[in-house]
Formats: sequence, C-alpha cells, structure tokens
Amino acid sequence: MPRFIRKTHKKAGTSPGTLVHIGEKKQDQTRISLMDYDADRLAEAQPQDIATVFPLKDLPTTTWINVDGVHDIGVIGKLGHHFMIHPLTLEDTVNTSQRPKLEEFDAYLYVVLKMLDYDREHEKIRSEQVSLLVGPNFLISFQEQEGDVFNAVRERIRKGRGRIRQGGSDYLAYALIDCVVDHYFLVLEQLGERIESLESRLYENTGPDLLHDIFRLKQEMIYLRKQIWPLRETLSRFLKLESPLVKEANRVFFADVYDHLIQGIEVIESLRDVLSGLQDLHISITGHHMNEIMKVLTIIATIFIPITFVAGIYGMNFEVMPELKWRWGYVAVWGFFGAITAGMLVYFRRRKWL
Amino acid sequence: MPRFIRKTHKKAGTSPGTLVHIGEKKQDQTRISLMDYDADRLAEAQPQDIATVFPLKDLPTTTWINVDGVHDIGVIGKLGHHFMIHPLTLEDTVNTSQRPKLEEFDAYLYVVLKMLDYDREHEKIRSEQVSLLVGPNFLISFQEQEGDVFNAVRERIRKGRGRIRQGGSDYLAYALIDCVVDHYFLVLEQLGERIESLESRLYENTGPDLLHDIFRLKQEMIYLRKQIWPLRETLSRFLKLESPLVKEANRVFFADVYDHLIQGIEVIESLRDVLSGLQDLHISITGHHMNEIMKVLTIIATIFIPITFVAGIYGMNFEVMPELKWRWGYVAVWGFFGAITAGMLVYFRRRKWL
Amino acid sequence: MPRFIRKTHKKAGTSPGTLVHIGEKKQDQTRISLMDYDADRLAEAQPQDIATVFPLKDLPTTTWINVDGVHDIGVIGKLGHHFMIHPLTLEDTVNTSQRPKLEEFDAYLYVVLKMLDYDREHEKIRSEQVSLLVGPNFLISFQEQEGDVFNAVRERIRKGRGRIRQGGSDYLAYALIDCVVDHYFLVLEQLGERIESLESRLYENTGPDLLHDIFRLKQEMIYLRKQIWPLRETLSRFLKLESPLVKEANRVFFADVYDHLIQGIEVIESLRDVLSGLQDLHISITGHHMNEIMKVLTIIATIFIPITFVAGIYGMNFEVMPELKWRWGYVAVWGFFGAITAGMLVYFRRRKWL
Amino acid sequence: MPRFIRKTHKKAGTSPGTLVHIGEKKQDQTRISLMDYDADRLAEAQPQDIATVFPLKDLPTTTWINVDGVHDIGVIGKLGHHFMIHPLTLEDTVNTSQRPKLEEFDAYLYVVLKMLDYDREHEKIRSEQVSLLVGPNFLISFQEQEGDVFNAVRERIRKGRGRIRQGGSDYLAYALIDCVVDHYFLVLEQLGERIESLESRLYENTGPDLLHDIFRLKQEMIYLRKQIWPLRETLSRFLKLESPLVKEANRVFFADVYDHLIQGIEVIESLRDVLSGLQDLHISITGHHMNEIMKVLTIIATIFIPITFVAGIYGMNFEVMPELKWRWGYVAVWGFFGAITAGMLVYFRRRKWL
Amino acid sequence: MPRFIRKTHKKAGTSPGTLVHIGEKKQDQTRISLMDYDADRLAEAQPQDIATVFPLKDLPTTTWINVDGVHDIGVIGKLGHHFMIHPLTLEDTVNTSQRPKLEEFDAYLYVVLKMLDYDREHEKIRSEQVSLLVGPNFLISFQEQEGDVFNAVRERIRKGRGRIRQGGSDYLAYALIDCVVDHYFLVLEQLGERIESLESRLYENTGPDLLHDIFRLKQEMIYLRKQIWPLRETLSRFLKLESPLVKEANRVFFADVYDHLIQGIEVIESLRDVLSGLQDLHISITGHHMNEIMKVLTIIATIFIPITFVAGIYGMNFEVMPELKWRWGYVAVWGFFGAITAGMLVYFRRRKWL
Repeated sequence: MPRFIRKTHKKAGTSPGTLVHIGEKKQDQTRISLMDYDADRLAEAQPQDIATVFPLKDLPTTTWINVDGVHDIGVIGKLGHHFMIHPLTLEDTVNTSQRPKLEEFDAYLYVVLKMLDYDREHEKIRSEQVSLLVGPNFLISFQEQEGDVFNAVRERIRKGRGRIRQGGSDYLAYALIDCVVDHYFLVLEQLGERIESLESRLYENTGPDLLHDIFRLKQEMIYLRKQIWPLRETLSRFLKLESPLVKEANRVFFADVYDHLIQGIEVIESLRDVLSGLQDLHISITGHHMNEIMKVLTIIATIFIPITFVAGIYGMNFEVMPELKWRWGYVAVWGFFGAITAGMLVYFRRRKWL
Repeated sequence: MPRFIRKTHKKAGTSPGTLVHIGEKKQDQTRISLMDYDADRLAEAQPQDIATVFPLKDLPTTTWINVDGVHDIGVIGKLGHHFMIHPLTLEDTVNTSQRPKLEEFDAYLYVVLKMLDYDREHEKIRSEQVSLLVGPNFLISFQEQEGDVFNAVRERIRKGRGRIRQGGSDYLAYALIDCVVDHYFLVLEQLGERIESLESRLYENTGPDLLHDIFRLKQEMIYLRKQIWPLRETLSRFLKLESPLVKEANRVFFADVYDHLIQGIEVIESLRDVLSGLQDLHISITGHHMNEIMKVLTIIATIFIPITFVAGIYGMNFEVMPELKWRWGYVAVWGFFGAITAGMLVYFRRRKWL
Repeated sequence: MPRFIRKTHKKAGTSPGTLVHIGEKKQDQTRISLMDYDADRLAEAQPQDIATVFPLKDLPTTTWINVDGVHDIGVIGKLGHHFMIHPLTLEDTVNTSQRPKLEEFDAYLYVVLKMLDYDREHEKIRSEQVSLLVGPNFLISFQEQEGDVFNAVRERIRKGRGRIRQGGSDYLAYALIDCVVDHYFLVLEQLGERIESLESRLYENTGPDLLHDIFRLKQEMIYLRKQIWPLRETLSRFLKLESPLVKEANRVFFADVYDHLIQGIEVIESLRDVLSGLQDLHISITGHHMNEIMKVLTIIATIFIPITFVAGIYGMNFEVMPELKWRWGYVAVWGFFGAITAGMLVYFRRRKWL
Repeated sequence: MPRFIRKTHKKAGTSPGTLVHIGEKKQDQTRISLMDYDADRLAEAQPQDIATVFPLKDLPTTTWINVDGVHDIGVIGKLGHHFMIHPLTLEDTVNTSQRPKLEEFDAYLYVVLKMLDYDREHEKIRSEQVSLLVGPNFLISFQEQEGDVFNAVRERIRKGRGRIRQGGSDYLAYALIDCVVDHYFLVLEQLGERIESLESRLYENTGPDLLHDIFRLKQEMIYLRKQIWPLRETLSRFLKLESPLVKEANRVFFADVYDHLIQGIEVIESLRDVLSGLQDLHISITGHHMNEIMKVLTIIATIFIPITFVAGIYGMNFEVMPELKWRWGYVAVWGFFGAITAGMLVYFRRRKWL
Repeated sequence: MPRFIRKTHKKAGTSPGTLVHIGEKKQDQTRISLMDYDADRLAEAQPQDIATVFPLKDLPTTTWINVDGVHDIGVIGKLGHHFMIHPLTLEDTVNTSQRPKLEEFDAYLYVVLKMLDYDREHEKIRSEQVSLLVGPNFLISFQEQEGDVFNAVRERIRKGRGRIRQGGSDYLAYALIDCVVDHYFLVLEQLGERIESLESRLYENTGPDLLHDIFRLKQEMIYLRKQIWPLRETLSRFLKLESPLVKEANRVFFADVYDHLIQGIEVIESLRDVLSGLQDLHISITGHHMNEIMKVLTIIATIFIPITFVAGIYGMNFEVMPELKWRWGYVAVWGFFGAITAGMLVYFRRRKWL
C-alpha cells in the first residue's frame, strides 16, 4: 500500500514554497545535460555548474535542459531563481509525489507526468516523476534519476529529422510527452502477458498462488490507473490552452498524443474487466471442483455405507441368527450387495452424476 | 489479450509523421479500385499505377478510390503527396491500431472506423481498420485487405438507384459508414445466438467448458465494446460539424446512422447484462447442486452410521453380553434398526430434504 | 435473446429511404380508421381506400388517421407521398425495430414509441411499435396491429370531454403518448406481482425453477428498460422543442407525461434493485442450508465414528484380549460410549451447532 | 412490492385534469385548519365550510390553509376554483402517488413532497404525500391525513418567534419543507439503529431470519431513496427560481434546507454501503462456518476411518491369521492405533487445522 | 452507525437561526486565542473576555481569533453580534454536524471543514468540525476542542517566514485549510498500514476476526469519504469565487490545496478498491481451503470405506464361507486391500488431487 499513499506533502503545515525534497533519493548526484539547437545548429553539453546554462535563456535558439535527480535543492533553487520560476512550481518539482497536472503561468507552462516501468523481477510497476517547464524558447525537464525514454528524442534532434529542430520548445514538450505515453503501452503489454499466462494456469491449478497473483495484478491495475488517469485531464487542458507558448500548428500533435492516451486508458479498463472475469471464473471453477469432489465422496459413501452395515449385521454374535445357518446365506448376502450397488449406480446415472 | 493491446504505435519515440506500417500484413499486394461518377456518368477501373487516378482529383465528378492493403508505404505516400494529406493522417492510415475517430482538416475529413466480423470457427471477433478521407469531390477509403461489405454500395452506384449518384462525397461517406454499422448487427446476432445456446446448456451441464465459454463471450463483448464505443463520439461530432464538406441536406443521414449505432451499443449493454445474469445463474445452480449432493450423502450417512454402530456392538466378543443370549435379541435389533431409520426419515421429511 | 437484436435494419447496404417492411407481419390487412373533428363537429370513418382521406389534409379541422398494420408498403407509400413525408421517416415507420425517438421536420414531428404488453401466459413482455406523425392539423398514427390502448382517447373525442376537441393535433399527440406511458405501469405492476410471488417462494424452495424465474424476470427488466429508457430523452426534447407545431399552452401536458415516465423509470430501477436483492438472498439462503446440512452430517458422524471404532476393537479376534474376559467389560464399554456421546454433545452445544 | 408501483395514475386514458382521488382513503372527513397572520396579528380557525376562507385570499395578511384528507373532491374542487388553480395541479393533489416536484405557475408555486414515518411495529416506512400551493400571500397545504410534523411551525407562528410572522408565504413554505426534511433524519436514525442491531446479531446467528431482515432493510433503503431523491432536484430548482413569489432574502433558507437534504441523501448512500458490507460479511462468515464444520468432520473421519479399518481386519474370521495368535498382537494393534492418530494430528497441526 | 446519522439538526421544527449547540460537548470551557499581525508586527493574547477583541476588527492588521469549544452560546452570540454574522452562520457554527461547505456573504466567507484524526486504540476515525469566518482583515476559526493541527501555522506567523505575514486573511484561510487537508493524509497512511497488515494476515488466518476487521475498515472508508468528498466541491467553488475577499494572487494557493484534496480522494478510492480486492481474495481463499479439506476427507474416505467393507464381509459369521477356510485367504485379502488402495491413489493422482 505504501505506493498508494506516499508521503505526499511537505511536513504538514510548513510554508508553501519551501524547497524540501520528498521521495526516495534514487541517485547520488544531480546531473545536467544540455541541448541547444535551432534548424541549423546543435550544441550539446553536460555542464558541472548550473550557472553555465543561464546565458542560453536569452538566445533565440531552443534550449533543452535536462536535470536528472531532484534531491539537490541548491541546483534547483538556482535554476528556479534565474528562470524566474514560481516557488510553488519548484516545490512541486522536488516533491516527487505530485499528481500529473498542467499549470499555466505567464512565463511558462508547468507539466507533471509519471514515467512508468514494469519491473519484471518484482512484478511491480515503478513510477518516476517527470516535470517539464516549457518556456518560450527553453524547456527544462526534471527526472528522478538517469536513464530515461528520451534518448529517441535526443537522436531525432541530433539527426535533425522531422519537425523537431524547427518545432520550438512546445514541439519538444510534445515529443517528450509522446515518449512517456508510448512507454505506457510497453507496461500494458507486459501486464497483458501476465494476465494471459494467468488465464492458462487457471484450468490447472486454482491454489492460493494464483489467487495472490490475480490480487497483485489487480492492485497493479489500480496503481496504473491512478498514475495515468489524471493525465487525461492534463492533456485535454493542453488542447484548450490559450497560451502563446503553444503554437497553433503544434496543437494537432497534442491532440494525437491525447488520443493515444485515451486508447491506453481504454486498454486499462478492458484489462480490468478481463481480470474481474478471471476472478469470477476462478470462483466458478472452484465451485465446480467442489461439486466434483463431493460427488466422488457421495457415490463411494452411499454405495458402501449400506452394504457395510449389512456385513456388520452378520458379524453380530447373537446365538439366534437363523440366516447364518442357511446353506445359501452367504451367497444371498453377496447377491444383496450386488443389488444395492447396482441400484445406487442407476440412481447416480439418472442424476447425471456419472 | 494481445488483441487488447496490439502494438499500437510507432516504435516509441520515432518522429511523428513517419510512415511505418503497423499491424498484420493481411495480403500480398495493394490493390486499388476506382469509381468516378456523377448523376449521369460512371467510370470504373482497377488501375495498376496509382498515378493514373491523380487527374480525377480536379474533375467535378465524385471519385471514390478504394485501397485494399495499407502495408505498401510507397503507394500511400504518393497518394498522400498528391492529395495533400497531412503526414499524421497518413501515419494513422498505415497504423492499423487506431481508435475510431474523426479529424477535421481544411481540405478533407479523416474518419477511422473498425469493420468487424465474427469468425465462427475460432469464435472470435475479427477487426479490420477502415479509414475514409472525405474531400470536396473525392473519397479515398483504405482497408487492410480485400473483401468487404461495400459491394452493396458499389451496386447502388452502378444501378444509380436512390440519392447516391447525386449525393456527392459526403453522402458516399455516409453510405460506407452505414454499411459498416449495419454489419455490427450481424456480429451482435451471432453473439446473441451463442449466448442463447449457452443458456440452454446451463441446466444440463455446469462444467468448465461452459464456464470457459461464458468467459470467452464476456471477453468478446469487452472487445466489441472497445471497438464500437468510440465511434459514438465520432458520429456525434459528425452531427455538429461545421465543415463545408458535409452538406446540410445530408446531415439527416448521419443522424440516422448515429441512431443505429446507439441502438447497437444498447444491444451490447443488454447482452452484457444477460451474460452477467447467466454467470450469476451458473453460480446459483452450482450451489444448488452442491446442496442436493450433500443432502443425499447426509441422508444415507445419518441413517446408516448409527445402525452400523449397533451392529458393531453385537459383533463384540465380550464374554458377558447378555443380549446375545436372549431369545428375541436378534429380532429386537432389527426392530431397533427399523425404528432409527423411520425416525430419521421423519426428521428429513420435516426439514424438507425428502 | 432474439428480442434484443431483432433484424433491425434494411438488408445491410440497401439505399436509405427504400420502403421495406421489417418485422413480424402481425395481421393480414392494413386497416385505416379516421377521426376528423373540431370543437363542434366529429366525423368518423373506416375508409377502404387511402385516397379518401387526402382532402382532409387541407381542412382546418384536426384529422387523426390511424393505420393498423405497417406491412402494406403501397398504402404507406401513398400516404407518405400525399402528406409529403421524408423517405427516411417512411422507412422508419415500416421498420418496426426503431428506438423511441423524436425527429423534427419543418412540416411535421415524427415520434416513435413502444407500446408494451405483458403476456401472462408466456411470461414475456410483448412490444409493438407506434409511430406518430404530428402535422399542423393532422396526426397519423401507425401501429403494427389492431387492438390498442387508444380507445379511451377515442371515447374522449366522441364525448367531447375535456380539452381534447379544442386541443389540436399536438394535444392529441400528448393524449396518445400519455396512454402509452400509462400502460407501462400496468406492465410494471404485473412484473411487481411476479417478483413478490418469487420472494414468498424463496423461503420454501430454492431449486432451479426459482433460479430460472429470477433469471427470466431479470431479462424482462433488461428488455423493459431498453424499450422505455430512450423515451426519456425523446420526451425531454419535446419540452425544449421550438417548433410551432407544439402550442405553448400544451407544453405543460408534455411535462406531465415526462414526469410519469420518469416515475416509471424509477420503478424499473427499484425493481431491478429488488431483484438483485432477491438473488443475493437466494445465494445466502443456499449457503445457510448447506451449513445446516453439513452440521447434521458432522454431528452424527463425529459422535458415531469414534464409538463404532471402539465397538470394532472388541470385535477383533485376538486370542489375548484381557478386557473381553472382564466381568464388567461390556458395561464399561457402554459407559465409554455414553461418555463420548455426551462429550461431543457438549462440544457441539458450545459451538452453537445445537 | 406494491409500495413501489402504486396505482399511480388516473385510469389509463381518462382526460387530464379530471379530479379522481387515487390512493388509500386514510381518514373519514376532510378537515380544514386556518391560520391568518401578519407581524402583529394572528387568527386561527377550523372552518366547517370551505367558503369561509375565500375572503382571506385578498387580504394582505399571510393565510395558511391546511387541508387534511384529499379524498373529498368537492372541497378541493371549490378551493381550486376560487384560488384559480390549474386543473392538472388539482389532479396531482388528489392523486397521492406523485413524485416530489416543483411546478411554477404565474399565480402560484406547486410543491409536492413526501412525509415519511417509520412504523416500528411493521418495520416499514410509511409515506404520506404533502402538497403545498404557495401564492403571493397565501399557502395551502394538503395532507392525506391528520397528525403531522407541522405543529412546531404552528407553535412558532403562535409565539411569533423568529422571522416567521414577517416572512410571508414563501418563508412559511420554507418552514414546512424544512420540517419535512428534518423528519427524514428521524427515519434514518431508526433505520441506522436497525442496521446496528443487525451487525451485532451477525456474529451469533446467521440464519434466514437475519437474511430476511437484511433483505427487508435493503428494500426500505430502496424505497426511502426513491421517495427522497427527486426532492433534491425539486429544491435545487427552488434555488434557481426566478419567480417573484420567492423573495430574494429568503433564498438563503432554501439553500439551507437543500443542504440538509443533500446530507440526508449522503446518509442514505452510506447506509446502503454499510448494508452491502453487512451482506458481504454474512456470506464470508457463512463460508467460514462451513470450513470450520468441515474441518471437524474431516479430522474425526480421517483419524477414525483408518483405525476402524484395522479393527475390522482383526475382526475377520479367517482360519489362518497368524497375528491373532501372537502374544503381543493386541498391544501392537493399540500401538498402531496410537501411531496413526498421532500422525494425523501432526498432519492437521501442520495444515493449521488445529 | 450513530456516526453516520448524528443528531444533525436543531430539534426538528425550531426556528432557523436559533443558537442551540448540537453535538458532544468535548471540553468544559470555551477558550479564545488571538493573533494580530502585519508584516512588521505581531501581538498574541488569550483574552478571557471576548469583548477585548472587538476593537481589532477595525484595524488594518490581520486578526486571527481562534475559538476552542462551540458550546458556549453566549460567547459566540456576542462575537456574531459584533462582527455582524448572519444568524444561520452562527447556527451552523454551533451545530457540529454540518457538511463541509462554503457560503459567500457580502461581509465574509464562511467555510466549514472536518478535521480528521485516526484513533489507533479504538481503530476509529474521529472527526471535529472547524468553521472559518474569513473577513476582509480578520479570520475567526471555531473548533470543537483544544488541540489542533494549526500550531505549525502559528509558528510560521511567529517566525514571519514565507508569505504568511503579508498574505492577509485569505492567505491565512488557505494556510489553515491546507493544514487540515494535509492532515487527511496522515489518517490515510494509517488506514493504509492497517490494510497492508490485513493483507499479510489473510494467508494465515481467515477467521471472523479478519472479516470483522475488513468490515470495520470498509466502514471507516465510507465514513472518511463522506467527510472529505463534499470538500471537493467547496474548494472548487473557492477557485471560481468572484469575491473581493480572495485576492487574485492567492488563488494559485487554493488551486494547490484543491489538488492535494483530489489526490487524497483518489487515494481513498484506490484503498476502497484494494479493500474490495482483499474481500474477494478472502472469499476465494475460503473456497480454496474448503476444497483442500474436502479433498483430504474424500481421499481418506474413498480408500478406506471400500476396504473396511471387505474386512466387514470376512467378519461375518456365516457357517458357509469357503474363503475363510482357504490357506491363502487372509493373504489374498491383504492383496485385495493393496490393490484397491493403489487404484484409488492412481485415480486421485490423475484428477490432480494428489
């Protein structure tokens, strides 16, 4: 459960805008990487000192500053100061338990999203917060740790393919969000495979392991939904945004990524339905097994209990038991056993138990 | 599950607008068929070279270009170039995992729908993506493979019956969408028949086969809903469209097909409710069977266990067991057996077990 | 299930506006009955030839043409031609699988409703489509067969009671719709009675008959809801209609019938809730019965199995079994039997099984 | 069920506006009570003849006419005639199966509500229809029978406390509605107590009585919800009313009673959730009991069945059974019995059945 | 249940605006604490006499009057009189069973919220009503008892950190609401821990204690939701408020706390889903256990019942039983026992019961 209610806020009651890193510290050092480009030119760097990026702010080129690791309050504070970021924005950036959201300021747009990853080993979805600060000619992205899905975008910038070099910072924002959303489908595919394997196991084994796996998967679906769902509203607001920071021509791209997201959400809902179906199926199969077991027991017991009783009778030691003296007594008893058994079998056949 | 999360997007991170065919390649060659008509005239052709259709674009006649097979990037790229199609539209056309949607561009409307088919042999719904590009005097339709439900429309064009020859490209779009939606009802009818047959099997056999069939049908319903539901919004937007591409007089037809679709969706919801009811019924019947089995076992056991015990007593070999010497001991024991049995039967009758 | 997905449309792909009767042919001949009235005057007729009604169209009196049987394409086509009805309207009229709806044309309003009837013998709801064409001074009603709930309206027209003779065609439309909606409550009452009788049977008998009846009733509720629900939207649109065909003063009546309908829908929802409750109750009662049966079995078995074992011991034929020689051995064994039985009874009493 | 679908309407098809009393006749005579007041003056009366109240209509004082018993069509017809009430309003007043609603006429507002009462003896909610006709300086209230919750309001008028003497007829309407809504909470409290007592019974007894009580309470909740829910919309419309009949200054009071109602509805929803929880709990407890019973049976049976078999072996009468002759055979058998029992106990302990 | 339907209103029928304290009297004396500050200055006091705070109302400084204990009608009446509070507001303040809400008056905003606390000992959520009266330069907060979560805010005021000293009364309101909402997460964390511990217990023990705990937690979730949910609407209205009492610059803070609240509500929904999942899991595990128990019983019984019968046969005392005389009879019987046992084991292995 801790994933559902991570320590979400500043220590209750502290002043808003106070920079306190909240969340797991996932790497040691904050690393900055920089891409500065326009249609013709591209400069890349990994500056040690954040101050070296400040002059780029006023150039007409598009500047992408990527910050890995948000626990270093100093670096982020300086960035925030120079780029004139609202204190609440900075606070949300270092607090890695935000909901996906879009906030519109005069000087920039602030977008929070969740990058998801399926950890096959622990069978858990891992979530990492990504914040994007989209200014008129710069974009600052914050991630909790190195290693991301943005390399494809970097490659496209380097190769200058497509619109990306001319698109400006809003197009870059689209490209990054699109990467994150596309990545959700990888997670969904892996969950889908797990569900499929559950289904095939269901007919062989209905033990607690399987139950536990269904339960775990359901929780992953709940978690996934909680992470993705609010992004829908966020992107929908993007489409209606009347900010000069998003160029008219780029709106169609945001509509496209919105569409992908809706598709992802529909897949989640379908998988949830399938999981519910699996659980119902499990309950039904368990009930059916129980019936089968009971039938076996009942057939054996109802055949043998009466005839064992008869055998018991002739094991009694009464002095006067005329049947015991009869010539064909023993044979008659066997006949009786056979008759009862046959009768019972007919009865079970009629009830369709056999 | 793979049907629910087909590889839906371009390799995550590639540039939008890149033409990459995504989906199963369902036939070898892309085939083009062409109908060019107005109220008086009709020309049909199946050109090998896509370039032969380009001159038709500027004629006042209505031109319907149907493309079977969307894996041939070259053909589609050329078409797109000549008809000035937006790159995102082309990308969506060759990626066969789109949601049904309507996109409005200045020069054309872009509609994506799913053509559904029930494969009786595998008891699965098959889905094929159909894209329509509706321009002022042309309509380009893309299908994944040959063989479609559009022959009826072709016949109507050939015979010049009804409004179709005068209706223009928007009326043609309506006719095609109407065909697709009408076809959904065939799928629904077949699912309905399967459900009906399940119901009659339910009283005879409650084994895992039946359970599996219910589960499978539920999944088909989930899949069907996922394919059809978004079309509702698509068609509803058609009704509100303020595009010159849809003539006022034709709007009533789109309202009509919207109405059919709503009816189809209501049928899906009703069938889902019926399926849930079947599953509840199955669980109840299983519980009832269990009770019946238990009753048989309990009646037999509670009658014979006590009397077998009595028989056991007189099978003991104690030297001092006065009853064994009694003249009427054996008879008395039989009387005792009868009394216990009768008592039990009365008891069960009172509890309404017999 | 066939009721849920009746062959709903024209043969997929035929031209819209083609008159093809779809549905069961419920009577042999199409019959027309005619009422023409104003505040002072009333003329009734049952013309054989549809053409005789045409002159009435241009008189200022209110003309009600009722057509029983919609399979005679000829008659309906002529009517449509003379009254200038849109081809789609005619098509919907002869296709008896429409959803309830309201369509607004310049010259008339077109209303489709479902008349429902509970067939006690087959325990099924029967549905009949009624279409109303409301013009400025005429109303044409189409029914699938003779015998309807409109006789009360006819009586009111004949007796000239209330507003009906002055109300015009829109008031007549209200009166007819009100009749149909009022009739829904009769169906609901009969379903309500069936549910009530189910409830009382539930405590006596929990067999498959009862289950089947619950399931059937649930399906009737699903069907009923599907037939009535869309009418809500239809009537709600009536209230907002800005057509000169509905007089301001008559709006309050449509609000009234809307209100009745909402009440009916609420009753359906309540009955569905009650039915679900009944099914839950059934499952709980089944579980309780099972427990009761198991208790009886367990009590008998746990008392007698141990003592039967003891009896079995002293039935062994070992040569050295000192107890068998004891003077009070047999008595002691009986004491032992009593002690075990008493102990078990105490144990069961403690567990509240007795 | 009859409560859910009371004969709700005029005999289907009768003319709207016909005065026909529908519902149970709950008292013999219609009784009228009258309060006429302004800030300084108060007159009370219980006139036998309805005509005596007519002159009050034109006085500037606030007149409250309360009518107990709505079956006397004559009295109500006369009132309606003098106060110029719309025929549909009168019809709704004498038909006691209306939904709560607000209707706005030029001369008055018409409000229908349900007064609820919990009949502890029959454990049923009783509902009584209250209609309010709010004119500019008069208010007519109709109840089905004497005895109401309005005495507190009468006391406030008599004592002249608070705003009531200056508030006018709309404030009086508020005061009456507030009384009715406050009374709902008494009903809810009693249902709440019943649920609480169910909860405590659940751990002792899971028999059909309890099940029946849960089922009954669920139905009462469904009924309650059906009675109260539509009032929400009614009061919400009050807040948005642009009628001169509701003074601006009094709006805040209607907002207040709306708020109370919402709270009541939330309580209903919570209680429904709690009841569902109780039923789930019941099913789980039943399942747990079953397991416990089965464990006892299984433990006893699996211990004694094998050893009884062994005892049976040495009860056989074969001539050649060497063990029977052994010196320590009998003792060995006892050892064997002990070993099996111990082994079984260890096994059960491991499975956590003991 | 009493928590769900606390005596919510004034004695039904009393005049609105009458000050009657409703709720538990949680402390003996009403205590007032006072903070009066602007950017430069801060005065704190705990006046005995409420009259000493009145002069502060007209100073430009921000005045925060906190009242602990709302049962002293006298004090609150005086405050209300001096600060010109609407009687309904005062009534709501002393009635501690309000829903969270926002009311807008010309002179002040009135906010009601619920402060929640998880009582670990009784495993119950405790709720305390907090009312805020936000005037142009003063804020009056009412709590039911001393001891609150506002100390952090007091500290910030004292230390003059952040915006709080310059923010005015609306910022102070934000700070207080933020404290309350942040506190909800502490409650959620504790509930989350309880759920987590339930999950781990589920595999060991499925007894009624666990069931009861699940049921209790579900009720706490229902209660929590009921307390928090209406706040959503309240805060959402804050964002849209066009009152001069909320400064434009402070709106972003209210948006922030709204966001936190939504996150809290999402956590509640997720936890409810997880709890449902736990209950489903419990039912499935119970069913699985039952199957396991039944299997053990059935295996033992079906092996030993037949062979016990055979032993019974040869315990019969018929004079003519040739097998008894056979040399190898006894050995043959043992062989027979072995064969049956082996056959049964093979059968069970095939059915995957072993």
